[in-house]
Amino acid sequence: MIRHTVVFRLKHKENSAEEKKFLADAKRILAPIPGVEKFEQLRQVSPKNDYRFGFSFEFADQAAYSAYNDHPDHVAFVRDRWLQEVETFLEIDYVPLG
Amino acid sequence: MIRHTVVFRLKHKENSAEEKKFLADAKRILAPIPGVEKFEQLRQVSPKNDYRFGFSFEFADQAAYSAYNDHPDHVAFVRDRWLQEVETFLEIDYVPLG
Repeated sequence: MIRHTVVFRLKHKENSAEEKKFLADAKRILAPIPGVEKFEQLRQVSPKNDYRFGFSFEFADQAAYSAYNDHPDHVAFVRDRWLQEVETFLEIDYVPLG
Repeated sequence: MIRHTVVFRLKHKENSAEEKKFLADAKRILAPIPGVEKFEQLRQVSPKNDYRFGFSFEFADQAAYSAYNDHPDHVAFVRDRWLQEVETFLEIDYVPLG
């Protein structure tokens, strides 16, 4: 299992219509991409960093993760929405230890 | 549900006995603290950041999370091990969105 996570802050104002639309569209577009086994949308609540949201995806293996990365719906979302609307982000990917 | 995560890099050499001991002791000491519902030890595998490991904890609510933070076993672990053996870290806390 590979858990792909990204923590981020949007350019949009908090609780704005643009923020809601970004989050809804991300779920609608990314969650159904083949290989995504568990998709979570999260609110980042620690005061120890400046990120506001997180997405988490689980994949069976690297092949499934790579297929997702290369899927045209993912590529288009990154190009047309993520890079336009996200102010800052950090990707963190996990596999179980041991 | 609150998911407390921390991604970090140790001062120890990779695959060293000190690294193994830190990870084993963290599991032995932190996982049994009351309120910890799901404890995961993870390897960070993205080349897009310099962290090497992650821990993830789930708590029912803020009261359970605060009790964990204040628990003497946690306080002692942070003081005696974490601050001594961890080179750099980032805490990220999530709640489900919506």
